[in-house]
Formats: sequence, C-alpha cells, structure tokens
Amino acid sequence: MTSKNFKITMEYDGSKFHGWQRQTRDRTIQAEIEMALARIIGHQITVIGSGRTDSGVHALGQVANFRCDTRLDEAAIQQALNSLLPDSIVIIKCRQVNTDFHARYNAKSKTYQYWLFNHPTPKAIGRQYAWHIRAPLDEDAMAAAAEQLIGRHDFSAFEGSGSPRSHSVRHILKAEFIKEYKPDYLIFEIEADGFLRFMVRNIVGTLVDVGCGKTNVEKFTTILTSRDRRQAGATAPPHGLFLLKVSY
Amino acid sequence: MTSKNFKITMEYDGSKFHGWQRQTRDRTIQAEIEMALARIIGHQITVIGSGRTDSGVHALGQVANFRCDTRLDEAAIQQALNSLLPDSIVIIKCRQVNTDFHARYNAKSKTYQYWLFNHPTPKAIGRQYAWHIRAPLDEDAMAAAAEQLIGRHDFSAFEGSGSPRSHSVRHILKAEFIKEYKPDYLIFEIEADGFLRFMVRNIVGTLVDVGCGKTNVEKFTTILTSRDRRQAGATAPPHGLFLLKVSY
Repeated sequence: MTSKNFKITMEYDGSKFHGWQRQTRDRTIQAEIEMALARIIGHQITVIGSGRTDSGVHALGQVANFRCDTRLDEAAIQQALNSLLPDSIVIIKCRQVNTDFHARYNAKSKTYQYWLFNHPTPKAIGRQYAWHIRAPLDEDAMAAAAEQLIGRHDFSAFEGSGSPRSHSVRHILKAEFIKEYKPDYLIFEIEADGFLRFMVRNIVGTLVDVGCGKTNVEKFTTILTSRDRRQAGATAPPHGLFLLKVSY
Repeated sequence: MTSKNFKITMEYDGSKFHGWQRQTRDRTIQAEIEMALARIIGHQITVIGSGRTDSGVHALGQVANFRCDTRLDEAAIQQALNSLLPDSIVIIKCRQVNTDFHARYNAKSKTYQYWLFNHPTPKAIGRQYAWHIRAPLDEDAMAAAAEQLIGRHDFSAFEGSGSPRSHSVRHILKAEFIKEYKPDYLIFEIEADGFLRFMVRNIVGTLVDVGCGKTNVEKFTTILTSRDRRQAGATAPPHGLFLLKVSY
C-alpha cells in the first residue's frame, strides 16, 4: 500500500448542518465525511477543506483533500463515500493528486453565488435555496454597486466579528449579477482570492439595501471605504449562499 | 356580510405532507389550509381541491375554492393565509369568483410535470425535487414512447389499485419531454382531462424503462393497449412529480 492524496469536490445542502467544520456536538459536513472515510479506511483521517462554510450555507463545488494508505482508487473511494454519506452530501468528483496538494493553502480563488427570489409572494418549492425579497429591487443600481467591489480593498466594513484573519484586504476578481433562466431570480456571483467571515452575506445585505432604495450607489462606495461594520447593511441569511467553485 | 366564493392557486412542497386530502391523523395540505382559514374566518370551512395529490407530490399550481361569509377581500385573504401557513405552502393567487365555481367539477384539464435527474452521481441541492436515474437515458426513445400516449385511451395498465373512478378512459392532450435550461435534467410534461391514481408515476416508471433499454417503444404501445397493470414498469417516486396547472 502506498500513501495517496485524494482531492474531492463536493456538493452539499447546508440546511441541516452546522457548517463545514468539525465540532464536538453538532452535525457538520467535515465530520460526516470523516466518519464515512473512517469506515472505509478503518481509522480516523483528517479531511482538509478549502475553507469553512458557515451554518446553513450550501456548496455546489467545495473542495477538500485527505491523505491515506489505501489500495482503493479514486472511483472506488467516490463510490464508497457516496454510499455512506447522507443524501444531502454528494462527492461529485474524486481525483488522486500530487502528495503536495493542500486544499486550503493551494486555493487561488473562490467563487460564491447568492440567490435572491424577488417577488411579492414567497416560493414553496426551492424556498430553502434563495432569500425572498418582497419589495421590487432596482437591479441596475445593484449592478452598479457590485462593480465598486472589484479590485483590492480593505473589507473591514463587511467583516463579521471574531474573524480569524491576519489582515482584511481581499482582491475581488468578479462581482456581478448573472442572467438567470428562472424568472424573478437574481443571482449575485463573486470571486476573490479569499473571503472574510460573513463577507459575502454582508455585501449581499447591503446590495439589497441599494436595490430597495434604503441606500444608494454613492453611499455603498462610502460604506466600503469606511472600513466600519456599523455602516453596512444586515447580514443576508445563509440559505441563499452557495460556494460554487474553488480554483487552484 | 355577503357569501363569497374564493378560488386559490397554491404552490407546495409535498415532502413533509401526506398528500392533499384531509386525514384524521397525518399532516395534509388541505388540513393545513382549512386550519388557517378557520383561524381567519372563525369557524371550520371546507376547501375543495381540484383533486388529490398523493403523499410527497408537489404542486406549482394546485387550485381550490371555498365559500364563506366575510368582509375580507381577495388580497386580505391571501395575505392572512400566507402569514399563517407553513413555509412549504404558499397561496400564489386568490380571486373572488362566481358562486357556481367548483374547483373539482369545473376543471377542464390538468398538467403535471415529472422531473428526472440523469447523471452518474446524484444531486445534493434539489434532490427532493427530481428522481435520480444513474444509467444514461435514450431521450429519443422516451419521446417516441410518450407520443403514443396522446389521444383517448383506456389507461388501466397505468392505474394504481384501489382507485376511486367510474371508468379508466382519459384523453391525453399533451405528453412530451420539454427542453430544460438545467443540464442533466429531463422534464416530462403531460396534460389530460383527468388522471387515474398513480397514472403519471406509472407512465414515468415505464418511460424510464424505455430510456434504459429495459423495454422499447413497440412494447410500450403494447403495454398501453394491454390494459394490464402487471405489464407496466414500477411506479416512479412521488418527489419528482409536480401538479403544474389546472385549466378551467
């Protein structure tokens, strides 16, 4: 048996989990995958995620890696994991990679999507995957505000408290509303070299304030440059947020 | 106060309900709406659905009506119901209609959609809204089989046992796979003047057999004309089925 390093790509429905990171009590994605792996490999193995996702946040392409001594190949590992994991977590890809590969340290950028459903009445089907906003949103104003985010900025104004980080400057590569096939849905997509805690949800909460006319594009820019959390809008709920992709 | 008749259009996520029809013990859509209405109007009122949906089946446009003495207008009724109902049931429209209107007797046709997710690995996001088929499906064969359904036929071969009906001839107005924006999803849409119990799910189960090569288009036609339930495929699971529209 040789030591192998596997890179896994995961889709998960965060509704029933207390986020990615293993905790002593609550159900988490990392813990579910580590428990399944322990049954497959025969002992505890640490799964290294590209980063945490918070309680209730979903993923369409979270990435992790783990090293282990096994004769199983990537297809067998994927199949075994999917047969043991709950329906709300799916391993969509499994690849054996170079022993050096590290899902967190090697991540170059991450892309998130935030789904808004903008209609006077809520949705029943898919309500767990979008934030419902009753008031009509000014999409042009929101798009103009989103554009201000692109580039390198200190994102302290959009940072959750108690964040574990050395500095709060992040480089935003993309921040735009993408055209969606579904009527009444608005999808915000943002890519950066990294994100502060609650950063996407705080940005979305403030963009929705722009869309509702509670604030405007000029004030949005002022909030961004203020580096003062008290200036920004409320934190958008977790159930509209998806970790879409991690690039290496 | 005058006696009014209200027509309501509903979207619901059937996952957590034992179908439409009121039962003594289990949670049902009809019972939830009647409980909410009783709180609004002050006494028990019967809600007449266009028909039942089975346990676990969803609706994007189920229709019902109810008569009551109230000063409330349609907008107030809709708002009050939505504020009392669980998130998984939404009144998307409420209109005051002629006293004669009866949601079941006046229904001219109903349209259902059945969602299939056809991919080697399952979905985590939205898994509760589509039947996952691992094996690649022959879409052309399925479309050709679906075409055979159009017109007037005796659907005994696709009927669930213990169905409350006087005869089993139904007129199919539409039966086709519609193009969907989402990759790997296949949506079957069927419209008829009425449906037998489990009819759509038994048809879909048999169409999937055609798609997998377990049977073929010629045999599908033989099954349809056989009027023998034992010839048809298994009943497709309820969570892929949506009552899309009721036409009057």
